[in-house]
Amino acid sequence: MSQTSRLFSFVAGSAGPWLVADSRPIAGPPLAAAPRLAVAAGNVVAPESGAVWVLRGIVSHERYVTRPEKQQLVAASPALGRPEATCAALIPIRKNAAWWAMTQDERRRIFEEESHHTAIGLDYLPAIARRLHHCRDLGEPEPFDFLTWFEFAPADTPAFDRLLARLRASREWTFVERETEIRLVRA
Amino acid sequence: MSQTSRLFSFVAGSAGPWLVADSRPIAGPPLAAAPRLAVAAGNVVAPESGAVWVLRGIVSHERYVTRPEKQQLVAASPALGRPEATCAALIPIRKNAAWWAMTQDERRRIFEEESHHTAIGLDYLPAIARRLHHCRDLGEPEPFDFLTWFEFAPADTPAFDRLLARLRASREWTFVERETEIRLVRA
Repeated sequence: MSQTSRLFSFVAGSAGPWLVADSRPIAGPPLAAAPRLAVAAGNVVAPESGAVWVLRGIVSHERYVTRPEKQQLVAASPALGRPEATCAALIPIRKNAAWWAMTQDERRRIFEEESHHTAIGLDYLPAIARRLHHCRDLGEPEPFDFLTWFEFAPADTPAFDRLLARLRASREWTFVERETEIRLVRA
Repeated sequence: MSQTSRLFSFVAGSAGPWLVADSRPIAGPPLAAAPRLAVAAGNVVAPESGAVWVLRGIVSHERYVTRPEKQQLVAASPALGRPEATCAALIPIRKNAAWWAMTQDERRRIFEEESHHTAIGLDYLPAIARRLHHCRDLGEPEPFDFLTWFEFAPADTPAFDRLLARLRASREWTFVERETEIRLVRA
């Protein structure tokens, strides 16, 4: 994928196929309320679109998984856009300076050996589709480091709740300084 | 450092404190010729600046070094802007799809255990100052993945030549699909 086609804009406002069912700050300041959300390929500029806010992120190579972990993820991960996946969540996260001051091996140790981030995620496949977007190195200032987009069927909502609870109980999450949870349903 | 203050633009044209002494493609197509180069903080837009070309990159956390390697690098690395460092080089690099399809542990193995990238760099400290900029995930399409900026005294030019030769002989460099070497002297 080219750089442009890897970039996505999450546009909150009065348009878009996703209705905001709930938006709550988990850590740090909340995002402004909006009734709908659109996920757009490429860069959407807020003033032109009339959006309440726009968050941008780029799909990139994985930073932590090993080859066996990646093979497990790829084999079990569903595509986005399944007809039955009428629930979605957007979870923007910012990690603190202590996280980014660590070296790769230190971050990997906390991410997987201590927090089992990938292993926990695998427990909820193939029910919960997921796409991770990176914002930290976009060039233009962004309020978050990561945007994770999830899609699942309504019946899998309790499983999704458990996924979030397990990740938030991990040591990795002690480095999260801002997090908002936006739950959506397809209009 | 904020996202904005980590972003730098390398502006080739008729202005700037660095005279282009040589610009040669090592792999892939060359960059257009220009007499001078400026290194500007933030985002410089080419049409407005009258530049021949602009390359942008963002300073970010290290992707491969371990804590002991980072400590060695930090202890030995000189600052940019030393008065005696009147020579500089800008080396933009793009790695191929096979590199980016590898997992982190696979890339680390080639980067350090096989290619000794950090160990080779340490051999030329504190003579050669270096700043790495990432372009791959900037959001706007960029022709390279990395821009590395080097500064050194004229007497250290042979050492810099050896540094480049050793890195280019490494297995890591078999994944480099585009590289240009721009040598500069302070005007």
